[in-house]
Amino acid sequence: MKDELGAFVPHVDCVVQGARTGPLAGLSFAAKDLFAVAGYRTGGGNPDWERTHPPARRHAWAVQALLDAGATLVGKTITDEISLGLLGRNQFYGTPVNPSAPGRVPGGSSSGSASAVAGGLVDTALGTDSGGSVRTPASFCGLYGLRPTHGRISVEGMDTQSPSFDTCGWFARDAETFVKVGEVLLQAPASEIRPAKLLLATDCFDIAVPQVRSALAPVLEKVSGSFVQTGEVELGEGDLPAWWENQRKLQAGEFGRTFRPWVERCVPRFSIEVGRSITMASLISDEELVGPKAFREKARARLEGLLGQDAVLCLPTTPILPPGREESFTQMTTAVGRIIELTCIAGLTGLPQINLPLASHDGIPVGVSLIGWRGSDEVLLGLARALAE
Amino acid sequence: MKDELGAFVPHVDCVVQGARTGPLAGLSFAAKDLFAVAGYRTGGGNPDWERTHPPARRHAWAVQALLDAGATLVGKTITDEISLGLLGRNQFYGTPVNPSAPGRVPGGSSSGSASAVAGGLVDTALGTDSGGSVRTPASFCGLYGLRPTHGRISVEGMDTQSPSFDTCGWFARDAETFVKVGEVLLQAPASEIRPAKLLLATDCFDIAVPQVRSALAPVLEKVSGSFVQTGEVELGEGDLPAWWENQRKLQAGEFGRTFRPWVERCVPRFSIEVGRSITMASLISDEELVGPKAFREKARARLEGLLGQDAVLCLPTTPILPPGREESFTQMTTAVGRIIELTCIAGLTGLPQINLPLASHDGIPVGVSLIGWRGSDEVLLGLARALAE
Repeated sequence: MKDELGAFVPHVDCVVQGARTGPLAGLSFAAKDLFAVAGYRTGGGNPDWERTHPPARRHAWAVQALLDAGATLVGKTITDEISLGLLGRNQFYGTPVNPSAPGRVPGGSSSGSASAVAGGLVDTALGTDSGGSVRTPASFCGLYGLRPTHGRISVEGMDTQSPSFDTCGWFARDAETFVKVGEVLLQAPASEIRPAKLLLATDCFDIAVPQVRSALAPVLEKVSGSFVQTGEVELGEGDLPAWWENQRKLQAGEFGRTFRPWVERCVPRFSIEVGRSITMASLISDEELVGPKAFREKARARLEGLLGQDAVLCLPTTPILPPGREESFTQMTTAVGRIIELTCIAGLTGLPQINLPLASHDGIPVGVSLIGWRGSDEVLLGLARALAE
Repeated sequence: MKDELGAFVPHVDCVVQGARTGPLAGLSFAAKDLFAVAGYRTGGGNPDWERTHPPARRHAWAVQALLDAGATLVGKTITDEISLGLLGRNQFYGTPVNPSAPGRVPGGSSSGSASAVAGGLVDTALGTDSGGSVRTPASFCGLYGLRPTHGRISVEGMDTQSPSFDTCGWFARDAETFVKVGEVLLQAPASEIRPAKLLLATDCFDIAVPQVRSALAPVLEKVSGSFVQTGEVELGEGDLPAWWENQRKLQAGEFGRTFRPWVERCVPRFSIEVGRSITMASLISDEELVGPKAFREKARARLEGLLGQDAVLCLPTTPILPPGREESFTQMTTAVGRIIELTCIAGLTGLPQINLPLASHDGIPVGVSLIGWRGSDEVLLGLARALAE
């Protein structure tokens, strides 16, 4: 396939024909290079990961589900190294183009999947989201994207990063395709249930840059119109930073332990950003995780209490616009820190979050997000369809 | 040149004919890929370093000095990435063979230079030594090697690592060649002066593994015989760990600041070992260096007081045997920490240290070191020649 976006893993030519019939017949899809495809090595965005892992024996669950539903896999897409990144910059394989905002990063770590969908190279693509890796590129590239309820979609055959955070999500350009693919992955139809209440998370809007806030203002009016009731809530009760600080520590504690045996054995090469993350993660002790684990329970209770089974939380997907492709290490580190300020919420609570590509600033996509209660994934699908009309 | 040792930078073919006459006429030499060779990029053992630096306009001072003296440069040798390493493992270009101990690392960061000399591919080779990068591979490969008095040999055209530690050294298999090359680099003849006193650093021998201690025992007898007087001294006065802890912090503080602008701008790839070093160095504040700087002054006064201008300190060059080539990240980190326990002394004090390849354990080289007073480099050359007889 011609790949002028640099979205696909350049040295892997991987096509698997889907079933002849099924709800996705005729659609093409790509899979982030974190999903097993039988007969191929999962590269994980890092040459030493690819070199030190054998070819997969069978397809990942999500890949198999899409193939069985009739979609055809046309390639593996670039991911940030071992899924650690939110910008989509890969120093080994290049940074996929953001077709919706050329000159800016596509977001990551499901960078190639978002780039390929946004650029029209495929109809849909699989991504993974542990700390924001579907939501961020969906927002930056102007796509629909869902991080499902943790545990809702099987992660079998998907490379592990941080087990209590890892989820399997997907992207599409339009709500109709997005819903069709989601119905296959969720194994349930989009729901007709409409939550009564939209809760605007005021502290989440407050930390966004002015361009994001002003781009989302008209969208909020439109979205609010689909709900019986609209309210405001200060999610963090004055301490939203505690949410991201605890989430970062918990996730780093997990991925540090996930990758340690491999790092130890293979002494791999990384870009300095990932080397830094791995190094800092290796310094986190078990004792340091006790407090964050307790905080997570409180955060879950807080958000589940707010949502019940009849409300969704509305927030900017990211508080910033996609950074430029050539930013420095320090600028990138700062940008990642800013993104996590909002992606931490669904990560920490395990709740589903959908990015709706409904706004822009000077042509640059600005995503708005809805977080639903545990298991409300198909309700979010139904809302996406309704709001697209 | 045929390079079955993997000692030379594989993608660079670099030959510069030396002067027709001179004290080194007919000798061949190699230069660690940290020295400028006119017309070539200095690679620094890292592909992103090489990619982001222009070709050198002129030769490094030491390269020019050897060429002018008649030696011919036959290639650039592999270094640990940006000179940060003491084992000689390079995940991008491979680990040069240790011809004197196959299956074990050659030591670094002047790994390829030591490998090429030990394997007979060249007569001599230039290395750099900031924290032990000439002394360690000299010991592991069974070679003569000198870390000169800090500031004694010009480092012009040599990549900077930690300015207050960086020195230019060299290797040879035999004392005669070693002295000839040293006389060119030091611009002075080997001295006939024989210090009266040999001081055995008891705490430095105490921390060495039993194999190193037992291998050095007979050598000490022989070396002692060349001095009028032999004494013992506890160098660290009960706290040798303070020497290496302060040296590590000072050196990391310096190389962190040296590499920060480049790391910031180029977001380079590193093996995890170097990524970890760079990350940890970036966490060192100016305030944290105040204490180590004061300690350095005390350490200098302590050792200079012991040596005067009439004694040399004797110690194992490294407290361990060369580790195996396939050791894990943790094992490597441990080994590097052990090596620094003894290489820190000359680094911290800026005094000259020579490795004498006079011992072995089961055929594996074990080096013994002499540290002289400031400016006694040619005295150490004279001692090397005398002890070889």
